[in-house]
Amino acid sequence: MTESSGLTHVDETGAARMVDVSGKDVTVRSAVAAGVVRSTTEVLDLIRTNGLAKGDALGVARIAGIMAAKRTPDLVPLCHPIAIHGVVIDLEPQESTVDIRAAVRTADRTGVEMEALTSVLAAGLALIDMIKAVDPAARIDAVRVLRKDGGKTGTWIRPADDGRQP
Amino acid sequence: MTESSGLTHVDETGAARMVDVSGKDVTVRSAVAAGVVRSTTEVLDLIRTNGLAKGDALGVARIAGIMAAKRTPDLVPLCHPIAIHGVVIDLEPQESTVDIRAAVRTADRTGVEMEALTSVLAAGLALIDMIKAVDPAARIDAVRVLRKDGGKTGTWIRPADDGRQP
Amino acid sequence: MTESSGLTHVDETGAARMVDVSGKDVTVRSAVAAGVVRSTTEVLDLIRTNGLAKGDALGVARIAGIMAAKRTPDLVPLCHPIAIHGVVIDLEPQESTVDIRAAVRTADRTGVEMEALTSVLAAGLALIDMIKAVDPAARIDAVRVLRKDGGKTGTWIRPADDGRQP
Amino acid sequence: MTESSGLTHVDETGAARMVDVSGKDVTVRSAVAAGVVRSTTEVLDLIRTNGLAKGDALGVARIAGIMAAKRTPDLVPLCHPIAIHGVVIDLEPQESTVDIRAAVRTADRTGVEMEALTSVLAAGLALIDMIKAVDPAARIDAVRVLRKDGGKTGTWIRPADDGRQP
Amino acid sequence: MTESSGLTHVDETGAARMVDVSGKDVTVRSAVAAGVVRSTTEVLDLIRTNGLAKGDALGVARIAGIMAAKRTPDLVPLCHPIAIHGVVIDLEPQESTVDIRAAVRTADRTGVEMEALTSVLAAGLALIDMIKAVDPAARIDAVRVLRKDGGKTGTWIRPADDGRQP
Amino acid sequence: MTESSGLTHVDETGAARMVDVSGKDVTVRSAVAAGVVRSTTEVLDLIRTNGLAKGDALGVARIAGIMAAKRTPDLVPLCHPIAIHGVVIDLEPQESTVDIRAAVRTADRTGVEMEALTSVLAAGLALIDMIKAVDPAARIDAVRVLRKDGGKTGTWIRPADDGRQP
Repeated sequence: MTESSGLTHVDETGAARMVDVSGKDVTVRSAVAAGVVRSTTEVLDLIRTNGLAKGDALGVARIAGIMAAKRTPDLVPLCHPIAIHGVVIDLEPQESTVDIRAAVRTADRTGVEMEALTSVLAAGLALIDMIKAVDPAARIDAVRVLRKDGGKTGTWIRPADDGRQP
Repeated sequence: MTESSGLTHVDETGAARMVDVSGKDVTVRSAVAAGVVRSTTEVLDLIRTNGLAKGDALGVARIAGIMAAKRTPDLVPLCHPIAIHGVVIDLEPQESTVDIRAAVRTADRTGVEMEALTSVLAAGLALIDMIKAVDPAARIDAVRVLRKDGGKTGTWIRPADDGRQP
Repeated sequence: MTESSGLTHVDETGAARMVDVSGKDVTVRSAVAAGVVRSTTEVLDLIRTNGLAKGDALGVARIAGIMAAKRTPDLVPLCHPIAIHGVVIDLEPQESTVDIRAAVRTADRTGVEMEALTSVLAAGLALIDMIKAVDPAARIDAVRVLRKDGGKTGTWIRPADDGRQP
Repeated sequence: MTESSGLTHVDETGAARMVDVSGKDVTVRSAVAAGVVRSTTEVLDLIRTNGLAKGDALGVARIAGIMAAKRTPDLVPLCHPIAIHGVVIDLEPQESTVDIRAAVRTADRTGVEMEALTSVLAAGLALIDMIKAVDPAARIDAVRVLRKDGGKTGTWIRPADDGRQP
Repeated sequence: MTESSGLTHVDETGAARMVDVSGKDVTVRSAVAAGVVRSTTEVLDLIRTNGLAKGDALGVARIAGIMAAKRTPDLVPLCHPIAIHGVVIDLEPQESTVDIRAAVRTADRTGVEMEALTSVLAAGLALIDMIKAVDPAARIDAVRVLRKDGGKTGTWIRPADDGRQP
Repeated sequence: MTESSGLTHVDETGAARMVDVSGKDVTVRSAVAAGVVRSTTEVLDLIRTNGLAKGDALGVARIAGIMAAKRTPDLVPLCHPIAIHGVVIDLEPQESTVDIRAAVRTADRTGVEMEALTSVLAAGLALIDMIKAVDPAARIDAVRVLRKDGGKTGTWIRPADDGRQP
């Protein structure tokens, strides 16, 4: 076992590693992710009228989404722990679904698309927790990055047809 | 503000609360959840041949899923912190997708469907983190409980047609 | 260094330890704690009308209080990690203050008064965070256990005159 | 749901959000907070003579306060996760009370008054945990920011009469 | 992907899993682990006289060890989250070393040897953190389980000659 | 209790504190630590052939090591929470031991030797957890910093004879 600085060696075995970003610049970076919770029209009525036994589903899901952005490095093994400088969660109830959108922004050395996805998933999880007593079949679909901005690679916008429709 | 024991009062305002399960029995309870990560045939080849720069995607995702089950009460605001007595994550690479299944078991006072869903979502997040450099458009779909067993309500099995197809 | 079982030895030096509760019974135990956040009539108007820039102060504080009960063993070094089976947070805006009350219940081997106090403090902290831009002088007072029930020592109720008034 | 960058939209509904600080400068910022734990002269004697069954109350409370500063974003939902560059906790036993003071410093994009308050509250919680077997009526009072320095708003010092006395 | 209960399937690929312990009995189980931090006689003098710039090394290490027992499932991927009912850390300064011993006890469905090892390692880490400014070469050795008691397998005591001496 | 800025006061009592690093420069810093898990030739064969009941020991240990680097400030009371910009874990099975090496890199205001040590210890803990059913006597030895680079003090390399051999 040599005593070289260790991060630059080539590992030929495909072993997991946290890739080194110490040489990247601190710049403003942002990402927007989205997803949808599918339930029923009856449950959506309960959500809109705050009629659920466990309380205000949208309020709880919004805070779950914001707090989860801060937990991304705990959940995603190779994710860097980075600054989170802004999080906004939008929850739009539709006829039988809730659309979720999370926008995350940072000024740091790597992007925040994983943080935005984590926010969407946690908001979706929290929504399902609020409604599962009345709808055990609720599900989460279409969790995806919509766009990311900043950093060396610049802006990426999901194409209208991403070829991933089920 | 009275000094009654506090948990039994009726709150008419729809305020969020963690519902009291102290009177429920300790019994074996289990849940199975599933989901799918959609990517491309090229990426699935890289996953199968362990050709990704960040390392072994399936191995990392499997551990992410197991560890996330233990973090469910950190993510889902009104979830009870409970014992987790067994977790198995199955990851099955298909032509352009990875099927994810998580089975969680406990002997405690409430069910583990939220834990199983959290495992699926974390495994999916970790997979996306491993492949996002080569596929920024990867997405997670169909995250849902397949079945739950145990407790007073007994077995629930998702109907073949759950009415939630997009 | 002997190899005895270790937990029963007498430590004469006053060293910190987590006291052994493995021999105590699993019984239903509950605790109610309270506190008050002191601000101004102007800020209380903003709270009541949801006019704060960071959003719904009471909703955020309520969830902060519930989630913090689950984090008590992370904060209090010698606290046992125990099951939390129910949490209710009451927030009552008054003329220039918000009264906070947290009721926590468990079926486990030790009491939950620390969890109830932690909930009150976290709800108070979250409230201050929501209003600090308009009231940097907000403060928390009178954080205390009101009552506890269950376990071998049974019910304790705070005397009307607790001799702790400032 | 549009695909704009998301952080700048005006949300008219008062929904909770983590406000964007990515445009603020990295500067040295500090905050001092204080509080008091009220107990009895008998308990203060036990604290001073290290006569408590659970061990050294002041030592445990000091470390609880330091470690809690690092947990602030876990407890306060809309708080930014930021660097913590220095924490000092002062605990001064008086006749029947313990005065707590926490000073926190960072070089980051937002202030540390929430971290200083969290340190004071956690030190107070830990003190109560150490003495609750001999004084179930201990309480925490006067948790407040004494001063903050740095950042665009500069120094704020709590007025001698803050109008919040009970 | 079948919808069986999931935990009992045979996985032939050696994939990581959290093994199911839901069928094991709740019984009192304990474990004792030990280790040693090797430094210099000069540093040991500083530890004994509380002369280190960062403060009381033994007090900090003791609390680090106790708190770390509660974090074992966060660190060890396949470890079950279990109750921790008692923790005692002994730190005995010798001429140029500090002997560390941790005793952990629970009443739960699986053993606590990983918790005892985690306590020893965290106490050792904290000690090194306290002294690293004056001794960058400090090291931790001989971290091992001394004995475990309880559960179906009963008592195991490390043989005097464990065949692992370097 | 004065209202000075608090971080600069001289504390004569040796009380624990998190030392202020806000005045240090953001520079690239790295550290390499190592350790060894001692087991038996039979167990090493099981590790190499992936024949353990709990699954792939080296894969699990590698991820445990990477994730633990991010948890260092949770474990080490006076450690600063800092950015982690790269982590590589090497695990080299030998005849009856596994050599562990962790390299950690950051661009921040303080060094990462504690993070590298934490990674080594967590990888060692996870290995022991994977093999403890077949080798309850496995132990961890020689956990130490091999080198650190960057910052004002520059490079430190452990001397070939560190005077700490048992």
